[in-house]
Amino acid sequence: MTWETYLLEHQSQHQDELLQFLSIPSISSLPAHAADVQRAAQWVADRLTSAGLEHVKVLATGGHPVVYGEWLHAPEKPTVLIYGHFDTQPVDPLELWTHPPFTPTIIEDRVYARGASDDKGNMFTPILGVEALLKTEGTLPVNVKFFLEGQEEIGSPQLPAFIAQHRDLLACDLVLSSDGGQYSEDQPSLMLSAKGLAAVQIDVRGPKGDLHSGMYGGAVPNPIHALVALLASLRSPEGKILVEGFYDSVLPLSEADRAAIAAVPFDSHEYQERIGVNALLAEPGYTSQEHLAARPTLEINGIWGGFQGEGVKTVLPAEAHAKITCRLVVDQNPATIVELIARHIEKHTPPGVQAAVHPLPGTAQPYLIPADHWGNRAAADVLEELYGKAPYHERTGGSIPVCELFLTQLGAYTVGFAFGLEDEQIHAPNEFFRLSSFRRGPVAYCKMLHRLAQR
Amino acid sequence: MTWETYLLEHQSQHQDELLQFLSIPSISSLPAHAADVQRAAQWVADRLTSAGLEHVKVLATGGHPVVYGEWLHAPEKPTVLIYGHFDTQPVDPLELWTHPPFTPTIIEDRVYARGASDDKGNMFTPILGVEALLKTEGTLPVNVKFFLEGQEEIGSPQLPAFIAQHRDLLACDLVLSSDGGQYSEDQPSLMLSAKGLAAVQIDVRGPKGDLHSGMYGGAVPNPIHALVALLASLRSPEGKILVEGFYDSVLPLSEADRAAIAAVPFDSHEYQERIGVNALLAEPGYTSQEHLAARPTLEINGIWGGFQGEGVKTVLPAEAHAKITCRLVVDQNPATIVELIARHIEKHTPPGVQAAVHPLPGTAQPYLIPADHWGNRAAADVLEELYGKAPYHERTGGSIPVCELFLTQLGAYTVGFAFGLEDEQIHAPNEFFRLSSFRRGPVAYCKMLHRLAQR
Repeated sequence: MTWETYLLEHQSQHQDELLQFLSIPSISSLPAHAADVQRAAQWVADRLTSAGLEHVKVLATGGHPVVYGEWLHAPEKPTVLIYGHFDTQPVDPLELWTHPPFTPTIIEDRVYARGASDDKGNMFTPILGVEALLKTEGTLPVNVKFFLEGQEEIGSPQLPAFIAQHRDLLACDLVLSSDGGQYSEDQPSLMLSAKGLAAVQIDVRGPKGDLHSGMYGGAVPNPIHALVALLASLRSPEGKILVEGFYDSVLPLSEADRAAIAAVPFDSHEYQERIGVNALLAEPGYTSQEHLAARPTLEINGIWGGFQGEGVKTVLPAEAHAKITCRLVVDQNPATIVELIARHIEKHTPPGVQAAVHPLPGTAQPYLIPADHWGNRAAADVLEELYGKAPYHERTGGSIPVCELFLTQLGAYTVGFAFGLEDEQIHAPNEFFRLSSFRRGPVAYCKMLHRLAQR
Repeated sequence: MTWETYLLEHQSQHQDELLQFLSIPSISSLPAHAADVQRAAQWVADRLTSAGLEHVKVLATGGHPVVYGEWLHAPEKPTVLIYGHFDTQPVDPLELWTHPPFTPTIIEDRVYARGASDDKGNMFTPILGVEALLKTEGTLPVNVKFFLEGQEEIGSPQLPAFIAQHRDLLACDLVLSSDGGQYSEDQPSLMLSAKGLAAVQIDVRGPKGDLHSGMYGGAVPNPIHALVALLASLRSPEGKILVEGFYDSVLPLSEADRAAIAAVPFDSHEYQERIGVNALLAEPGYTSQEHLAARPTLEINGIWGGFQGEGVKTVLPAEAHAKITCRLVVDQNPATIVELIARHIEKHTPPGVQAAVHPLPGTAQPYLIPADHWGNRAAADVLEELYGKAPYHERTGGSIPVCELFLTQLGAYTVGFAFGLEDEQIHAPNEFFRLSSFRRGPVAYCKMLHRLAQR
């Protein structure tokens, strides 16, 4: 029997198993569901074992557990670490769900449940692919390690330490991430980069206490005026960052990069309509798409100072504050960026006030996998075979810390290899996963593991 | 008997009466004390009657009452309206008072009580002066009207309508205000001007809802960035206002004005030390003193938008807001200033956001009495006689709406003629009034009324 036939013959069983998996309310952010996360871990471990993986174990992290399993009988072949997560987001507002979030319901070839797309449905597919290969071919074309976690939805707090402590166990040549998706139902895509994150708070202090703005205004420096001048000095109206040295480590975009970005359809009219704005920014010399995808950004996330109530209060306040995050691209370093911002603020602080820049937690390193990396090339071949189209090369403005973690700790790049789609309501009520994607996933993984063996 | 002797002989009686007056808790802001404000009004009315004033009445305003009394038997002589107030600020924090605020206590020639300096102690002195003249000379050198109110500490909400409705009753040639003070114990001063007030809120709106700053930052205009750019465009770092037309109606300072302002001692080192700043602003071409006293100002009183909590939230917010007040000088008009700011904001709003300017309540017209006005000249003569020094010409950065009200409604300028001092803790715990000032006040009023008769 071929693996293709195996998958076809077991479709209904696999779908039943998916419903079972989705019925475990493994919400990682709610302490009351800690046992459910543990139960989901055990379900995954049992399923790895029945799929034919070896040395399967549920490992403690100090927080929610991880599940590990391996098959390492392909000497001379690459070792592939398959990543995913079995925890879910919470479900509120519950009243907006058409069906109970942990009573998976199939309607028109879609399964509705919390975690269906993010990430249980996706995460299950490489397990089924590996099982199909082992049951039909008796072997795998490459060495495989599964590394599945239970704390992704709360930012994986224990993961960096866990990976650092288990480098040998997790050693690999490539990571395939089952957490993510494709551009659309009939257009594949590969994620090339995620941005890093640097976050600061700026605190401006002036007089000892709040003053009467009539009696003192005009002579006493007002911290809000100082703050707005400082903030206005950080960025041009178009979004170019004016902090000295900010772009020094930014890898330039090649013509090929720019062509790849331009190849991803971007309907700016539809985009503006959806968001409710009548213009977009773009750093001079770049398109809005390039700015979003591959250029660093600086955004004020919050600002406050003085009187915020109804009516008038004639106060010249003693202090004013702002929070800023920068999204960074390779090879910018968050700590360096914080330092540069601090230097800029120090240099531009007007007389009569003190301005302090405090780093905030939540730093992330930028991540970029070369478009022609062997893992990407293999994925592109498989996706083209499945979809009949070459994948777009996408770049996200968000941060995916785990990719950079695998690169730094294990020396391995991560290729996103998952089949979620943007409309599947992840983190929202009525999350669903297309069963067509659930059937496509194992096939894609079988082809991918074979393709990677050709390296 | 001369009025001087009369005052000396009745000193102890007048002091006892002051303590009685101060023991009435006439707090205008607290509804529970409304009857006390009424009681204070009746006390004042009775005292005007016993002083020899005629047609004394407590008049309803719709809020706290006013007290009126007159003596109009000096044909061909000017009519002087004497203004003051018998309501007080609240007393909290009560625990910081050394003596109960409505149990007046005399220590070392000072009387400690809420309202002692602001304004009961001051307000009582012209009554005693008028009484001394009537009891000893049987007549007054000018026509006198008392107009004493019970709602000054809450912004005199019913006063504009009351004055408009009683223009004939209140008609006069000059107002003397018993609410205010002198530069120091041995240096007199005259208040020449008070600033006007224009207040606006600026609301900037961008996308329909809050967005993820990583996914959208760089392409979607951020309302906080737009707001800080708009606010930074309003004013130079030194405090020069950059709104087109803002200074168009500002009466220029003459060399004499500037000399008068410079004549008021200003120790910028001590000033900075007290306030806790290490530099002062000054509009280019003006000193900090001139800026404070006689030039318009624009101050951001409050700002808010996006995330203000602990840590990081990567939000690109849908809106951002600021509150601004401008202090205006003669002949600026608050409504025109609001219009100019709205036009400036409209012109400078960057693409992709909407900015709206809303006027806020609390408007005040600027006030300026010519330094050589006959009322000022008379007051200067009297003060020089009492102190042995010519008075400083002061200008406040605050607003005194009642002066502009009397000017507009009655066509009469107001001369501040009161004896409070800056250290007397008005609006604060342990307010006090110097009994030396309480003795000086009636003498000053007797001399002043005689001096005004020479016009």
